[in-house]
Amino acid sequence: MTRDIVIINAKIAAPDPPGGLLADHYVEIGAGRIQALGPMADYPHAAGARVIDAAGSLVMPGLVNCHNHAAMTLFRGLADDLPLMTWLEQHIFPAEARFVRPEMVYWCTRLAAAEMILSGTTTVADSYFYEDEAARAFVEAGMRAVAAQGVIDFPAPGVPDPAENVAAAARFVEHWQGVDLLTPAVFAHSPYTCSSRTLLGAKQLARDAGVPFFIHLAETGAEKKLLAGKWQGSPAAYLHSLGLLDGQTVCAHAVWLDERDIALLAASGAGVVTCPESNMKLASGAAPLAALRAAGVRVGLGTDGCASNNDLDLFGEMDTCAKLQKVRDLDPAAVRAGEVLAMATAEGAGLLGLADVGRVAPGMLADVIIIDLQQPHLTPFHAAANLVYAARGADVQSVIINGRLVMENRRILTFDVAETMEMVRRMAAEVRHCRSGSA
Amino acid sequence: MTRDIVIINAKIAAPDPPGGLLADHYVEIGAGRIQALGPMADYPHAAGARVIDAAGSLVMPGLVNCHNHAAMTLFRGLADDLPLMTWLEQHIFPAEARFVRPEMVYWCTRLAAAEMILSGTTTVADSYFYEDEAARAFVEAGMRAVAAQGVIDFPAPGVPDPAENVAAAARFVEHWQGVDLLTPAVFAHSPYTCSSRTLLGAKQLARDAGVPFFIHLAETGAEKKLLAGKWQGSPAAYLHSLGLLDGQTVCAHAVWLDERDIALLAASGAGVVTCPESNMKLASGAAPLAALRAAGVRVGLGTDGCASNNDLDLFGEMDTCAKLQKVRDLDPAAVRAGEVLAMATAEGAGLLGLADVGRVAPGMLADVIIIDLQQPHLTPFHAAANLVYAARGADVQSVIINGRLVMENRRILTFDVAETMEMVRRMAAEVRHCRSGSA
Repeated sequence: MTRDIVIINAKIAAPDPPGGLLADHYVEIGAGRIQALGPMADYPHAAGARVIDAAGSLVMPGLVNCHNHAAMTLFRGLADDLPLMTWLEQHIFPAEARFVRPEMVYWCTRLAAAEMILSGTTTVADSYFYEDEAARAFVEAGMRAVAAQGVIDFPAPGVPDPAENVAAAARFVEHWQGVDLLTPAVFAHSPYTCSSRTLLGAKQLARDAGVPFFIHLAETGAEKKLLAGKWQGSPAAYLHSLGLLDGQTVCAHAVWLDERDIALLAASGAGVVTCPESNMKLASGAAPLAALRAAGVRVGLGTDGCASNNDLDLFGEMDTCAKLQKVRDLDPAAVRAGEVLAMATAEGAGLLGLADVGRVAPGMLADVIIIDLQQPHLTPFHAAANLVYAARGADVQSVIINGRLVMENRRILTFDVAETMEMVRRMAAEVRHCRSGSA
Repeated sequence: MTRDIVIINAKIAAPDPPGGLLADHYVEIGAGRIQALGPMADYPHAAGARVIDAAGSLVMPGLVNCHNHAAMTLFRGLADDLPLMTWLEQHIFPAEARFVRPEMVYWCTRLAAAEMILSGTTTVADSYFYEDEAARAFVEAGMRAVAAQGVIDFPAPGVPDPAENVAAAARFVEHWQGVDLLTPAVFAHSPYTCSSRTLLGAKQLARDAGVPFFIHLAETGAEKKLLAGKWQGSPAAYLHSLGLLDGQTVCAHAVWLDERDIALLAASGAGVVTCPESNMKLASGAAPLAALRAAGVRVGLGTDGCASNNDLDLFGEMDTCAKLQKVRDLDPAAVRAGEVLAMATAEGAGLLGLADVGRVAPGMLADVIIIDLQQPHLTPFHAAANLVYAARGADVQSVIINGRLVMENRRILTFDVAETMEMVRRMAAEVRHCRSGSA
């Protein structure tokens, strides 16, 4: 048996029951997977492995960010406190038209990877323009990614002719299939920016290639009205009528759903990614998570692009997710800490088709993070509650992805973070300069 | 002129305009106050002062937590995802009756002080039982505090005879008046746990002593109903009818207000402290902040006790505060980043009667924090937006309170944090043991 890394003296956030804690355990990692775990009393001392002493720390599954546009780190804090359509149409779309270039996507995705790894995210589902560059940045960072080429019926960076959008996505998927750590996928932007022909073509591509299909769905009340003008029914019913909802479809946001929409999603097996902080910041609304989960819909958690968040810390997102649902439903038990923890780990991974990600158990892929519990805000420590309501990204000490140590004692080992920040700062100065010139 | 500390090469989050940034500045601190600041080009080199090089960092006012029950750190994560009344009556009140002792308040407040200082809070308004012990812990920690003895018409820890509650508060106020860093105050628990006689006595005491008067107001819909059964009107109208609302009264929560309540608060000059995370976690509701501020009511920000939060990080609280209001009103401009920053600094301090706290400007008390900007999640950096929407407590490098360096490079200099965590862990084990025994 390969033993690359052994973590000793650890508390482990065990998958069953959610919120359960194993004390004084070891975890053996080899060939990219968790090979074994058990009490320290049974620890089979052996040579050759890198030993990490996790005394006073907690080992838990790495977090899974199910919705991101990573390269948008460039636009962090660029335009805040604005309505979604103003934000998109007057700020983000023009800035994207002008500044999205392959090297922008590469460096700004790399910055996002640094931020995500430093805050305990080990898998991300990403979509943007020039997604080849994003995929390259994730693979180099040693991060697990489901990277989706965006499909939209506008001239887009990298795909100036919208008639080519599905073909471009097909080339992307073909290029990245079989690459370690990377799952290529297809992301149709939304029912209101893609024709039914484009939606059908993109979904067919995803079906043929056996990869996930993503779409933004019912994010705002305005979208719902817009679509109702074109088609007699809700956005979810529209996707259903096109036959787009199935077990390999993942709908991001899903805020404006009625009971029939929830029933349609549940019957189809489609998944939902909720992005509470983005939905709050853009005043889009609060998704009906408790109702979705009660109906049996699988739900993952996402940060969305950090221009509408403005960070990529899934610990904070878990906290907000649980709290938003409680106040939305005026029910403090609407979504419990253990449920949110599942959404941000195994349940989210399942949505992305990654059945062997999201639990610390033998046979699972070795995506684990180590949390420093020796801190006032985690004292006293109760597992699920304090991980969701008190822990933050900065509490993550070390990160292992696919059996490889990628961050140790807050230092990223796979690439130069200072260089990355400097490159993004230079691009941001250019953005700022152009905007102040035109203002 | 006394010069104890000089910060050089700093960016400064200037008070005017909110969100404005001064680059390459120095700040001179002496005799507990900010003596001068200016561009580095004009820096008057002089001997004798401790020099802190803040290159790559940001200097900003320390944060002001306007509502806390600090000793409740003992109950962090003890009982989560429960309704307020169940949480209070079946978990918190019994645990308090059994475990609140003077040494519990001292050590658990000390733990809270560690957490607050490490996350950039320099002033706290606190209230609990045995508040003498809390006041002692804050003064020893070197933290600025408005400490209020709680008044409630139940037998309470330290005040077994409710008939003595106002007299006990009077002794507390007298004992602590004139102590450096400490403002004593009076906290009447709520309109539903204090008789009108108790409320009037507590307010009279605060008036006579010239200290702030705090009260929980309209936190839940249940409270509103309860009071409507006893008195024909809203909780706010009830306080008004008793003459309790004036410029030295601070109402915590203020969730369930109608337009007339908002007008009453505005006309009276009373302040409001909003506790968004606690209100979300207990599913109490979302306060009408935009309406309150539009009416001219001064609003501060508080974490509430960390048993209902479950942390004391005001950076996270600012983020949630702005986002909750946006989604509440479906208006992304409902409360802007710069406004929340003001609430968490100068506006909150004003509520507490601390007119010379909350801004980095000559003559102000020297309560300043230094933020490490060299981090992926703060890149690129735009002042107000990223401080509110992306920065977290762990980004605070160093903290100066009253001109004294109390935390440097994440290490607290005024007391032993490891010893404090160990003491609280022991008490928490006792709580857990008793509860599992009775379960």
